[in-house]
Amino acid sequence: MPLFKARIEIWLKEGLVDAEGQTVKEALNDLGYPIMAARVGKVYQLIIEAVDKKAAEKTIDELCRRLLANPVKDRYYFEVSRY
Amino acid sequence: MPLFKARIEIWLKEGLVDAEGQTVKEALNDLGYPIMAARVGKVYQLIIEAVDKKAAEKTIDELCRRLLANPVKDRYYFEVSRY
Repeated sequence: MPLFKARIEIWLKEGLVDAEGQTVKEALNDLGYPIMAARVGKVYQLIIEAVDKKAAEKTIDELCRRLLANPVKDRYYFEVSRY
Repeated sequence: MPLFKARIEIWLKEGLVDAEGQTVKEALNDLGYPIMAARVGKVYQLIIEAVDKKAAEKTIDELCRRLLANPVKDRYYFEVSRY
């Protein structure tokens, strides 16, 4: 079966306080860097086997929704390409 | 001073074992997903004040090198645009 590469990004939803980002911002400010805002997210690169691109996208969307992202607080994007 | 948006990605260097990625891969395999490989990275979005784009890029590169990435084990990319 062909292989596909998926690039997934997971971020806290916009309205939520990003505590890790806030900590990064303050640490950088303390060191003198003029950072006005910071947000922190996660990126995954997965190699997945699937019959075609559409099937790969369906599976990636499902595993983002069910496993990698928390639907209450996260939003995610992904793109799939032939590996 | 104008504001710039920096998007930074930090990944473990290619030769290194990505333990978190390996754990994600195994967890997804256990659930029946045909994942062949997984890598996990971090993304930062920073808003920074700088006189121009070139100065913003210089500062972002410096803070990646000194603070956000570990030069021994990480590689990083970034792009800066007007906010």
